[in-house]
Amino acid sequence: MAHIDLGLDETQYPGISGLMRYRPETAVALNALAEALLHAPHPTLSAGERELIAAYVSGLNECTFCCSSHSAFAAAQLDGGMPLVTRVRANPDTAEVSAKLRGLLRIAAAVQASGRDVSAALVDAARAEGATDLEIHDTVLIAAAFCMFNRYVDGLGTRLPEDPSAYTETAQRIKVGGYVG
Amino acid sequence: MAHIDLGLDETQYPGISGLMRYRPETAVALNALAEALLHAPHPTLSAGERELIAAYVSGLNECTFCCSSHSAFAAAQLDGGMPLVTRVRANPDTAEVSAKLRGLLRIAAAVQASGRDVSAALVDAARAEGATDLEIHDTVLIAAAFCMFNRYVDGLGTRLPEDPSAYTETAQRIKVGGYVG
Repeated sequence: MAHIDLGLDETQYPGISGLMRYRPETAVALNALAEALLHAPHPTLSAGERELIAAYVSGLNECTFCCSSHSAFAAAQLDGGMPLVTRVRANPDTAEVSAKLRGLLRIAAAVQASGRDVSAALVDAARAEGATDLEIHDTVLIAAAFCMFNRYVDGLGTRLPEDPSAYTETAQRIKVGGYVG
Repeated sequence: MAHIDLGLDETQYPGISGLMRYRPETAVALNALAEALLHAPHPTLSAGERELIAAYVSGLNECTFCCSSHSAFAAAQLDGGMPLVTRVRANPDTAEVSAKLRGLLRIAAAVQASGRDVSAALVDAARAEGATDLEIHDTVLIAAAFCMFNRYVDGLGTRLPEDPSAYTETAQRIKVGGYVG
């Protein structure tokens, strides 16, 4: 059971979904942020790559609900599927991703520890592999946003779905309709 | 200088203000979130109390821009002014705040460390001092949101304002018009 009474059946609304129904005033902004960062058209980063950054940071924060959700959302939108997501989460330095994406994942890991850990050297290294300013910006904000979402979901003690197939079902819905559909 | 080229005069747009001009697509959602959490009418938590939670968490994250900003925003909206904000930031356990607000600040500190650090005991203790479910929810989300804002501002290496009076000037604007005015 969550730390507060959400006024709904938590088995039907696990993780952030129950919180969003409990407080629609903040849910609107949170969904708009997820849409802009993860699903809206982007000139160079695919939705799958952006979801992969979200899943990776959620894993570093040990947030089971968000990590499982965004791993499924990434897998549904990346050619490498869940095997690639699993390898990136285990070790981005050896996973089969582009050198540019590896550089962005290193920035994301620094953000997860502290914003002040993002050094000019990390940014320069990503840029040397082709990362643009917009990609660096969005990577920092995706990583920062998941330091929020992860704390929100775990800080209120929300439940996991009883059936893990819920993650893959939601992934299909997010892939098609995004976060504000 | 920020880690990326914001395409503007950073002395005119320090901290998050330059990032918001750089990426208006995400700024809309971020401002809507700040408005809902910190400035919109709330049944029981004043805007000053909510800004105090934001300032306290930003201090724990050592984010100078956000901590200075939200300390000024809290001071402008609390009877105790900046002296009270300074005492809360130094030690919420001895500052002159209600037992309920002290309980909420303890929850906020746990969230800052990790969502998984929010224990049932911390929640029960706040509730025993009169905290409502909505207050506990909003405290967790304010604390989580500032774990995002702090990382966003510091992760992109933004500048501080050259003149610290900028914080108090902005505080008057936020007090009256909020974050989406």
